[in-house]
Amino acid sequence: MVRTIQTCLGGILSGVLLSGPAQAAEPSAAPPIKISQESQACIKCHELYTPGIVRDWQKSLHARTTPRQALLQEEINRRISVTAVPEELAGVAVGCYECHSRNADTHKDHFRHNGYMINVIVSPADCKVCHEKEVVQYTGTKKAHAVGNLMSNPVYHGLVQTVTGVKRLVPGGMAQDPATMTTLTDTCLGCHGAVIEVKGMKKIQTPVGEISVPDLSPWPNQGVGRVNPDGSMGTCTSCHSRHTFSIEMARKPATCGQCHLDPDVPAYNVYNASKHGNLYYSLGSKWNFTAVPWKLGEDFQSPTCATCHTSLVVKPNGAIIAERTHDFGARLWVRLFGLPYSHPQPVKGDTTIIRNSDGLPLPTNLSGQPASAFLITPDEQQRRQKGMQTICINCHGTSWTEGHFNRLAATVKETDAMTLVATQLLADAWQAGVADKTIPFDEAIEKQWLRQWLFYGNSVRYASAMSGAFDYAAFKNGWWEMSEDLERMRDKIETMKWVKEKKEKKEKKEHD
Amino acid sequence: MVRTIQTCLGGILSGVLLSGPAQAAEPSAAPPIKISQESQACIKCHELYTPGIVRDWQKSLHARTTPRQALLQEEINRRISVTAVPEELAGVAVGCYECHSRNADTHKDHFRHNGYMINVIVSPADCKVCHEKEVVQYTGTKKAHAVGNLMSNPVYHGLVQTVTGVKRLVPGGMAQDPATMTTLTDTCLGCHGAVIEVKGMKKIQTPVGEISVPDLSPWPNQGVGRVNPDGSMGTCTSCHSRHTFSIEMARKPATCGQCHLDPDVPAYNVYNASKHGNLYYSLGSKWNFTAVPWKLGEDFQSPTCATCHTSLVVKPNGAIIAERTHDFGARLWVRLFGLPYSHPQPVKGDTTIIRNSDGLPLPTNLSGQPASAFLITPDEQQRRQKGMQTICINCHGTSWTEGHFNRLAATVKETDAMTLVATQLLADAWQAGVADKTIPFDEAIEKQWLRQWLFYGNSVRYASAMSGAFDYAAFKNGWWEMSEDLERMRDKIETMKWVKEKKEKKEKKEHD
Amino acid sequence: MVRTIQTCLGGILSGVLLSGPAQAAEPSAAPPIKISQESQACIKCHELYTPGIVRDWQKSLHARTTPRQALLQEEINRRISVTAVPEELAGVAVGCYECHSRNADTHKDHFRHNGYMINVIVSPADCKVCHEKEVVQYTGTKKAHAVGNLMSNPVYHGLVQTVTGVKRLVPGGMAQDPATMTTLTDTCLGCHGAVIEVKGMKKIQTPVGEISVPDLSPWPNQGVGRVNPDGSMGTCTSCHSRHTFSIEMARKPATCGQCHLDPDVPAYNVYNASKHGNLYYSLGSKWNFTAVPWKLGEDFQSPTCATCHTSLVVKPNGAIIAERTHDFGARLWVRLFGLPYSHPQPVKGDTTIIRNSDGLPLPTNLSGQPASAFLITPDEQQRRQKGMQTICINCHGTSWTEGHFNRLAATVKETDAMTLVATQLLADAWQAGVADKTIPFDEAIEKQWLRQWLFYGNSVRYASAMSGAFDYAAFKNGWWEMSEDLERMRDKIETMKWVKEKKEKKEKKEHD
Repeated sequence: MVRTIQTCLGGILSGVLLSGPAQAAEPSAAPPIKISQESQACIKCHELYTPGIVRDWQKSLHARTTPRQALLQEEINRRISVTAVPEELAGVAVGCYECHSRNADTHKDHFRHNGYMINVIVSPADCKVCHEKEVVQYTGTKKAHAVGNLMSNPVYHGLVQTVTGVKRLVPGGMAQDPATMTTLTDTCLGCHGAVIEVKGMKKIQTPVGEISVPDLSPWPNQGVGRVNPDGSMGTCTSCHSRHTFSIEMARKPATCGQCHLDPDVPAYNVYNASKHGNLYYSLGSKWNFTAVPWKLGEDFQSPTCATCHTSLVVKPNGAIIAERTHDFGARLWVRLFGLPYSHPQPVKGDTTIIRNSDGLPLPTNLSGQPASAFLITPDEQQRRQKGMQTICINCHGTSWTEGHFNRLAATVKETDAMTLVATQLLADAWQAGVADKTIPFDEAIEKQWLRQWLFYGNSVRYASAMSGAFDYAAFKNGWWEMSEDLERMRDKIETMKWVKEKKEKKEKKEHD
Repeated sequence: MVRTIQTCLGGILSGVLLSGPAQAAEPSAAPPIKISQESQACIKCHELYTPGIVRDWQKSLHARTTPRQALLQEEINRRISVTAVPEELAGVAVGCYECHSRNADTHKDHFRHNGYMINVIVSPADCKVCHEKEVVQYTGTKKAHAVGNLMSNPVYHGLVQTVTGVKRLVPGGMAQDPATMTTLTDTCLGCHGAVIEVKGMKKIQTPVGEISVPDLSPWPNQGVGRVNPDGSMGTCTSCHSRHTFSIEMARKPATCGQCHLDPDVPAYNVYNASKHGNLYYSLGSKWNFTAVPWKLGEDFQSPTCATCHTSLVVKPNGAIIAERTHDFGARLWVRLFGLPYSHPQPVKGDTTIIRNSDGLPLPTNLSGQPASAFLITPDEQQRRQKGMQTICINCHGTSWTEGHFNRLAATVKETDAMTLVATQLLADAWQAGVADKTIPFDEAIEKQWLRQWLFYGNSVRYASAMSGAFDYAAFKNGWWEMSEDLERMRDKIETMKWVKEKKEKKEKKEHD
Repeated sequence: MVRTIQTCLGGILSGVLLSGPAQAAEPSAAPPIKISQESQACIKCHELYTPGIVRDWQKSLHARTTPRQALLQEEINRRISVTAVPEELAGVAVGCYECHSRNADTHKDHFRHNGYMINVIVSPADCKVCHEKEVVQYTGTKKAHAVGNLMSNPVYHGLVQTVTGVKRLVPGGMAQDPATMTTLTDTCLGCHGAVIEVKGMKKIQTPVGEISVPDLSPWPNQGVGRVNPDGSMGTCTSCHSRHTFSIEMARKPATCGQCHLDPDVPAYNVYNASKHGNLYYSLGSKWNFTAVPWKLGEDFQSPTCATCHTSLVVKPNGAIIAERTHDFGARLWVRLFGLPYSHPQPVKGDTTIIRNSDGLPLPTNLSGQPASAFLITPDEQQRRQKGMQTICINCHGTSWTEGHFNRLAATVKETDAMTLVATQLLADAWQAGVADKTIPFDEAIEKQWLRQWLFYGNSVRYASAMSGAFDYAAFKNGWWEMSEDLERMRDKIETMKWVKEKKEKKEKKEHD
């Protein structure tokens, strides 16, 4: 039996569907959409107990179209990337059960819930049934590998522990406990994602009494590289939040701003202070954030993050400027994020395989020489840069665009030169025996060095790349700090050497 | 004589009242509202001289309804909490005179103004005639007691002086003048509020010539705990700004963001970087911020500050999720704000009565032991946490919700452990005689310790509590700084001890 | 031949022009606007290759009105300030060619482009043909002189070099290269502007093949004081972005926020945390940002930056509150921005002519005494303050307003007193020979001193002036930092003196 959403929810939806100009493109007089019997059962109960997500879903396109209808659209207008969907999904709304029951055999979080077999987590592998291209693209990215890239790289993992482990005083110094999973998912793994394990079933008290559910751990977590109980990587809801899964949301900068914040990766702060951001915050309320494809100049007057890094962007006459990609690094030629120097983008999303000339799992060595075997070639760099320029020149002249990119290249070089000076100062400290090189990220003077490239170098480079946020290149974690940091490092190392000398003299004296 | 606002302002208002979807619920064809003769007199003049506030008021609900009409609403829809109002107020708009003339006998700021007896300040005691429950609730809160809680607590007052007093060089060091009232109301008392005294009458030059008005001091001030000339505490306009007194404004996070900012209490910053904030900034322009009660899922898709801490929130079917409260701590079980450790919420709004085990007016002692006699019990803590969870589970599963709260509990514990290490380092400095324990908040090394819990501990706890702002738990005043701060304290104390030793040796040598 | 925009773009524009309430004032049934033959030729090609700016322009008022129509408006409603325009411009839309071909003889960036003689840069001298008053006002300002004021003042230029020059280790210390133009335009000159030179012609590859264009250097740059190839100063597009040139944008705070950010000039941050900002962010989506004149209370309920500093503001009855000015300092009596102390506004936009009592090009000497001959008089200060109060009192009582301004005066005095203490500490370092006074802005201890007034003093003063952003006066670069900075300076200087003493003793010993 299939009832229609019109029957269940008609009165409510009529107001919802038509509110706001962004919804204007939706067919208000569309025939009612069928909801599967299973999803109706979900809604019947959850409308009482979790009405927030039910209403959220009802405002989604998933509630207002079927995959079959989606496939009737011209390809350029489609929001799904397969050419066919399984028959049982094709004719009904993309409802609760359609998503939460897929690929049951791979889901360790599969369980019986009020007579239905349900997965707790809907993973990219499930979304793939309609959004295949996006999932395939995403799965190859650094984002999808964000957990392993951080936690399985001993250098980065050392930093994670040094920063987030609880400290305690011990005779002669400070010791630290291993970082706990609760703190890790509050900090690094909040953005990077965690490996979600299913530790069996557990009983929980709910408004409808005690029920048994899979015992997920750690939980909750929605980081971009989450490893799901079905083995897939990532979670689409990092950017397309449950249960509206809105393209509008993913196109707005606050979404990226959840993680891409200063001091380490200040893309959102920089955007907000840039001319592009200025246009968005001043005039953006009149733009169309739901149109597919996204027409430059017509739908929007200034790019958001998605425009340059992800979206299918076309000219007003329909000519394609950039194809949609969910490989967020695919349009990038240089990785501004210093490790410790900026470098060509890695070839693979899994960066743990990288070895620099010293054998360390870092994309450059401490002198700045890139681990080229693991990074894209100059040719590929140039190809990607051209691709990005193809977007810029739809608003900016060729000369303007080239000037911008040349400036960025110079800024990358200069900030890396500043990192090199800081590294030379640190090498002096290691040499003098006042710091220990073994783990280069875990002493006070080493963290002062980390600031140079992780906070200040990154800030200057992002500000240059996104043009306009001059404070982030100057006073606000910019050149002011880059220059001052060198002075601080120098002064600190001088003091350390001098204290060491005194101590040794004293010890020698006592020994004599 | 009573004229109607329709007569005075009809043409103007017709445009105003109907603009924007948020106003859609208002009766566009409502009969004209009577304005009292006295308020008409106010408007006649003030429309020429302070048109900003007159137009502001004309856009308010106060200008478009009478208390009698308000009482005709179903109780759940009402915006007033009394069951009857004085006859002279019932049938007219809530105009200038209705508010600025109440309780004249208690108002030291009462004066004759163009033939009318007027109070300069409309206080919560005046608003109480219609909004009784809200005022009663508010009066018992920490916010209402915010002036005394800061200025009458010798420990906190010491910090206030140390931070905001003008310094000068004196032989052998630096001295400081007492903080001035101008600077106090620019800083601490800007948010906390000031005690407003009436120093008689004064003559001022205005566009209509010289007039006599009460001489208020300090003035202006609109802090949340302002002590008014009628003895009442607080000012409703901190959040419901003059003269629209908008519920929409109070429900939007920028209102709380006036004071709840990093580094000390980064709730607004954390919200802005959280998933909830992401939803608000991406989709919030389509939500309904004026509906009473506030329907979760239907009126809004993500909570703002008010949703979780204040508002009357209901399910789409009308079932109450949370009752409205203007006791902003009433739904909170733990006080994340370290003093110096986080602790159960205080029982009373007046926190000057608290004494820790060392007799100091702090809610914990320096080892973290809570001053339990003055704090809510574990049972009450559990009751309140359950209440908060009741809101969360309307969108999140029980398991998700519990996982979130358990993580917060772990984070509270770990950040307090980090504060303990900092305190042990400080105790060592006190012990060694390089710092003086008498006032624990006024030396350079003590301020370094304050940073540990006031800036960094708070940041990590708020980020955990509001889930998602991972940068505020990691790099941005988070664990990075918590860990570095300990190193800085240790290094600084070592240097201080060593300088002391040298100095003593030298003095001994000179003495010998 | 003159075709009409209706013919070319009618279908598209009909949707665009009528979207959003802010456009409501525009005549939807206006007769089609003529576009000059030359501009039609531009559009024909650029619609294909730079559709972004073409659509941007089509959304502008320039595309929807002619200068002749503009002159038909009542003077108070006009957006142009001349009384007549050249006949060839009067009857057509303000199109590509109308702006990019003006004053060809003065434009070193003039070149032949597909048969038309074109200027790359449209300068204020070109905009002047319609917006004469604005350009004349702007040309006299500190903004217009922002390049020279920074780069031709040896003291400030020394700081620029110290901050932005790439450092390298040399025996015995660190040396620095001169700052490069790429980094300067990424940092200081990004906001201040650069001197744009035309280095001949160059060939570039574009989507339509190789073309020759003027070789501008540096390029791009849109700082407020840009010196253009025609010798004019400034660029209107810093605030009225290409090619919408929107008054709405210039009136919204994000525009000013591109440059007026913390830590050095935190006006935008302070506004965002102030009550005025709170109103804007909570209710501003319903305000009218395009009306001319701008009706206080009716069009907007709270000021933005433009209201107090620039716009033509009137009462609802049409009475003028403040005349429009593009001299952004014209309403200011005190310059809060310390150099190193706050001081009366300079008389002229060119501040390189200023000499303090020590002969340095600074508006005060190191004790705070102003270089009065170059600054406005107390009478003029009072006149301007009265002017500003005239805006405030349309919403705030006289007593409130005076209290606010008196508090600001006290805050200015106290922050300057804090700068004096820092200067005394620095003078002690100079005296003791541990720092070198010659260039007072280039050593580590001098930068610590710079922080006192450039970051912390400024933050406190801006917070006081714009009332409400108490965190910026307290914890966030406010009094907390001002007080701590003195302690840091004192401790650092003590260490420096002591190290010097030891070194000298050692050297003496070795010498003996």
